[in-house]
Amino acid sequence: MFFASDNSGPVHPQIMQRLMDANTGYAMPYGNDPIMEEVRDSIRTAFEAPDAAVYLVSTGTAANSLALACYCQPWQTIFCSRVAHIEEDESNAPEFYTSAAKLTLIDTDNKMSPDALRAAIGRRPNGNVHIAQPGPVSITQITERGAVYSLDEVRALTAVAQEYGLPVHLDGARFANAIAKLGCTPAEMTWKSGVDVVSFGGTKNGCMAVEAVIFFNPEKAWEFEKRRKRGAHLFSKHRYLSAQMAGYMQDDLWLTMAQSANDNARHLAEGLRAAGAEMMHSPDANMVFARLPRASHQKLHAAGAKYYLSEGDLDTGPADEMLGARLVCDWSIRKEQIDQFLNHL
Amino acid sequence: MFFASDNSGPVHPQIMQRLMDANTGYAMPYGNDPIMEEVRDSIRTAFEAPDAAVYLVSTGTAANSLALACYCQPWQTIFCSRVAHIEEDESNAPEFYTSAAKLTLIDTDNKMSPDALRAAIGRRPNGNVHIAQPGPVSITQITERGAVYSLDEVRALTAVAQEYGLPVHLDGARFANAIAKLGCTPAEMTWKSGVDVVSFGGTKNGCMAVEAVIFFNPEKAWEFEKRRKRGAHLFSKHRYLSAQMAGYMQDDLWLTMAQSANDNARHLAEGLRAAGAEMMHSPDANMVFARLPRASHQKLHAAGAKYYLSEGDLDTGPADEMLGARLVCDWSIRKEQIDQFLNHL
Amino acid sequence: MFFASDNSGPVHPQIMQRLMDANTGYAMPYGNDPIMEEVRDSIRTAFEAPDAAVYLVSTGTAANSLALACYCQPWQTIFCSRVAHIEEDESNAPEFYTSAAKLTLIDTDNKMSPDALRAAIGRRPNGNVHIAQPGPVSITQITERGAVYSLDEVRALTAVAQEYGLPVHLDGARFANAIAKLGCTPAEMTWKSGVDVVSFGGTKNGCMAVEAVIFFNPEKAWEFEKRRKRGAHLFSKHRYLSAQMAGYMQDDLWLTMAQSANDNARHLAEGLRAAGAEMMHSPDANMVFARLPRASHQKLHAAGAKYYLSEGDLDTGPADEMLGARLVCDWSIRKEQIDQFLNHL
Amino acid sequence: MFFASDNSGPVHPQIMQRLMDANTGYAMPYGNDPIMEEVRDSIRTAFEAPDAAVYLVSTGTAANSLALACYCQPWQTIFCSRVAHIEEDESNAPEFYTSAAKLTLIDTDNKMSPDALRAAIGRRPNGNVHIAQPGPVSITQITERGAVYSLDEVRALTAVAQEYGLPVHLDGARFANAIAKLGCTPAEMTWKSGVDVVSFGGTKNGCMAVEAVIFFNPEKAWEFEKRRKRGAHLFSKHRYLSAQMAGYMQDDLWLTMAQSANDNARHLAEGLRAAGAEMMHSPDANMVFARLPRASHQKLHAAGAKYYLSEGDLDTGPADEMLGARLVCDWSIRKEQIDQFLNHL
Repeated sequence: MFFASDNSGPVHPQIMQRLMDANTGYAMPYGNDPIMEEVRDSIRTAFEAPDAAVYLVSTGTAANSLALACYCQPWQTIFCSRVAHIEEDESNAPEFYTSAAKLTLIDTDNKMSPDALRAAIGRRPNGNVHIAQPGPVSITQITERGAVYSLDEVRALTAVAQEYGLPVHLDGARFANAIAKLGCTPAEMTWKSGVDVVSFGGTKNGCMAVEAVIFFNPEKAWEFEKRRKRGAHLFSKHRYLSAQMAGYMQDDLWLTMAQSANDNARHLAEGLRAAGAEMMHSPDANMVFARLPRASHQKLHAAGAKYYLSEGDLDTGPADEMLGARLVCDWSIRKEQIDQFLNHL
Repeated sequence: MFFASDNSGPVHPQIMQRLMDANTGYAMPYGNDPIMEEVRDSIRTAFEAPDAAVYLVSTGTAANSLALACYCQPWQTIFCSRVAHIEEDESNAPEFYTSAAKLTLIDTDNKMSPDALRAAIGRRPNGNVHIAQPGPVSITQITERGAVYSLDEVRALTAVAQEYGLPVHLDGARFANAIAKLGCTPAEMTWKSGVDVVSFGGTKNGCMAVEAVIFFNPEKAWEFEKRRKRGAHLFSKHRYLSAQMAGYMQDDLWLTMAQSANDNARHLAEGLRAAGAEMMHSPDANMVFARLPRASHQKLHAAGAKYYLSEGDLDTGPADEMLGARLVCDWSIRKEQIDQFLNHL
Repeated sequence: MFFASDNSGPVHPQIMQRLMDANTGYAMPYGNDPIMEEVRDSIRTAFEAPDAAVYLVSTGTAANSLALACYCQPWQTIFCSRVAHIEEDESNAPEFYTSAAKLTLIDTDNKMSPDALRAAIGRRPNGNVHIAQPGPVSITQITERGAVYSLDEVRALTAVAQEYGLPVHLDGARFANAIAKLGCTPAEMTWKSGVDVVSFGGTKNGCMAVEAVIFFNPEKAWEFEKRRKRGAHLFSKHRYLSAQMAGYMQDDLWLTMAQSANDNARHLAEGLRAAGAEMMHSPDANMVFARLPRASHQKLHAAGAKYYLSEGDLDTGPADEMLGARLVCDWSIRKEQIDQFLNHL
Repeated sequence: MFFASDNSGPVHPQIMQRLMDANTGYAMPYGNDPIMEEVRDSIRTAFEAPDAAVYLVSTGTAANSLALACYCQPWQTIFCSRVAHIEEDESNAPEFYTSAAKLTLIDTDNKMSPDALRAAIGRRPNGNVHIAQPGPVSITQITERGAVYSLDEVRALTAVAQEYGLPVHLDGARFANAIAKLGCTPAEMTWKSGVDVVSFGGTKNGCMAVEAVIFFNPEKAWEFEKRRKRGAHLFSKHRYLSAQMAGYMQDDLWLTMAQSANDNARHLAEGLRAAGAEMMHSPDANMVFARLPRASHQKLHAAGAKYYLSEGDLDTGPADEMLGARLVCDWSIRKEQIDQFLNHL
């Protein structure tokens, strides 16, 4: 009954198998391995983007920070949600990689609204020497609160960016879960909707440690390569990054795993609702934010369930006080574990 | 017959097995996995350093840059050899991670001499507001030209650093090869010889992508943790870094592999000498720098041997012109491959 | 009738005279001039801080950024008001000088409240590797909206900082105007109230281009000197910075000028109120934020008055619509000019 | 008898007068003052460059660092002499402003040679992801050892830069002294010889604290403005920078002062040679590097002469040992002072 995070589960056997298969003889280092050719082809095909520049790094923070650095001058500002991963969980890595640019936070507890984004950009007028200048807009899909922007919602945000001539980054640490929810194509959710660069996550969805950065316009390719190396993120034995991503793309495993995680989260959310839980956010994909009475949390923890409270203290306070919690389903969780959890409830 | 680099070979089966073994169920992320406990213990034991702070990252450049950043203020300078990896092959990563410190190069084509180091430090007088201030001394062991500093040589360099109160970093991307050559203990080559922090390499010696950073004085531990995260080098599924290093330390595999690589390089060097090659540097460990006639290089390349010329052009010039080459033995090369290579010669 | 800014007026004759007096013969460069001795003494005396480290730079942004950089690690965050100069008007200079630290904004349109500050710090828990760590608290006195924190208010903020062990910076670009308003001593408004480092402004108050940075604890002195030089802010002909500050401190000119500016602003505010203006913020010192009908603004601008609207458009809209404006009195404005302005109204 | 530096003398009366003249009423801040119009015109005229972008800053280190930052990516390297000011005397400011680029040093004790420059660039091959990429070439004219590159020598260096497509910066802290020596036009020494951006010094040659940065191609104008503000180098009361530069340009004062300094230095050098001194470098402009016996140095110091030894210790050693010294003539030194000095000798 492990719902603490989707970064704590095992690697999918198909991906492990690709690592084993790759482990023979010598291979050219630094991204010149033949498996990277396969990865590049499969991602370009999946995104219907034959000219895309595709790179691999080992952490989501590296993918986000390096992608943003290619589109942000040091005197500019990135626009993102107040609860974006790049603001809340990356310990100033975006600032570091952009040579000290600023993050301008859109005030929201979940999705950004186009109006709030427009207002924030408007407060940084172009051509003012005193004020941080507008830089990239970063959208987190799915959000850190588990919500999925619809295609229309994505397009409404990118339209605001385009009004001001700003590039758009999509933090897709849980990209697959969003596609599984929306039922659209990767192209529809990205370049066809005005996105310039994507962090396409693998680690949270069954890989070991790999994320792709995909530039739909390859003009930033060389800059990215230099920034990646300078950031110490270029793997010498790169074939082992390639092999993970190759296994992830093979037979749409990425989508299958995300679908399973989403299905289980929906099942979990339904069970929680039935047991009287209040939903804090719409559980669109593989994360559920719900309030339960303290006594229920205590019972679940006592039974061995692992997850984080986002509000209050487990041990101290009235038994019937409602406390918020985050419950995440990764690819490897099984329906029986959900049922076991709900039975304890 | 692959001698191009030790970053191109496969992962040792014992390490792959540990990755497979680790791949079950959930594990706490970000270095809180139980395998990291084992790693910490085994490294502390191997280095006779029970208080050492031990961290894992996935590239050698990250290990070097983050270790140096903990000991270098932005207005200081690192002292290193002109041919150090941090100068020649890290694309300004040390400058990036130290917030724009400078590298001061000791002029040498291989090892640094204590006198040259002392002279370089002397040209950066302490307390001068205009001049980059003295910061850490970084020693590469084994050097990028394949030489191994004796313990006395290491101590002569750290003694100079101590004269000026400067910390000492050891870039041990090929640490194991040095220990295999010297026959000393890790402690003797590091803290007992005045080294403060070590990049303890795994990737070039049979791992997939893992390096340990070892601080003998743990006062920099928290700073390192923050810098690692900010540099986007903290793995969420950290157990897969831990598992590699655990497999590497287990039963002294790290030393066994390095010994084998060194033995094969010595066998190669002897064969080359017998065939009339000139040694460019002393082949102390697993790298051989040797000059052969162009015609020999052509024959070897035609036979499928893979290695880099460090001088001249393979195709153009007199057949008897001597051209330098770098030949590296990794853990996985076999004596038969060396013999095959020498036979072609 | 110039109310656009206090950075546009002339230099006070007493300060110009000191520049002339200093302009003879040779003087040691880089802060080793004898006038700097006088400056150091007079500031230490004025602040009752005999051990303070005192430095001069030529811009307020340099004073703020360098002072903050000495107290902020790159993985930390500065806490300040959403309308602080360091956030709104320094084009990422604080981020640049702190090697890419973050600013955490306290949501307010004027002063920070202790509760809002405490809440913001609480959202950056100490010891969390993923989250920017708490760094210095920066208080702007007087605020960018013209308000003056009382001593109790300053102390309430520094008390919050002390709860969390955080250093406190005071952006005193208009320090003198605050002292003139509060009638307290510089010591009372700074170190006796828990402030660690002050940007003591001269430029906006009758100097040419000089600000002092005052560290009450001199342990950061050398770091500041190196950071100032590395930031290219160390003057070679430093005597001309010293002479300005010496003239500014001499016979309490700094306070006399600020008192005059405050008095004129009060006179202006009273006149505006009498003419039906709405005050947007309390005009505590030398800045008045007031709303007038568009028609009044048009009349004043037509008469040659210079000031900025903070709301709306001068030319377009109903004549009776109330539009906000910022009116600033510098040291050199005269009562007759205020009266002339009010008469036009 | 002050020969310690040209950064220690007084401001020329014509420049002081312009400061006084400027000190009346209000003026638009941040470079929008009318005097800046005059400055822009006079510099464009002097350089025959009607489209040049012209900016003022208050220190030479700021001029160099900001100019270079506009032409250097963080993963590139600047090429300069080992004795360049940007390497020896700016405490990592170029590294800071370029977001951690590297300086590659051309080994020389005075001027760079085109061959040495070409060799250094050749060791940083374009397109190599591991190696710092070639960035701007920075030429110091006159050098820190007092030498003046001839126009042919400048062109030989810029020709090498052009071979590799690299931009060229000229550190002209003593630009005027070079023009006075060469008798050419500013255009001939800069853009007509392949220079892209110039630090045109005022401070060392009779100004208070002002340097112009001149971009012959104005495409970097906005980037420079943002970098200057972000570096905290944009003056609010900018008219006082403008007034200095206006006074400096007026009636070719800049050239008159430099000519006087050069003449006095030549007179000094001749006297020194006549007295048996050895010239260490050719005294092309206003700096003389000469060796005298220790006893002579002692006599001169006892008589009150101020200058720095570049070799050895004044007090300890044989009386006849030859010790090197640097003697600098600024604009304000008079022939009588030189004669007085020589008489002591």
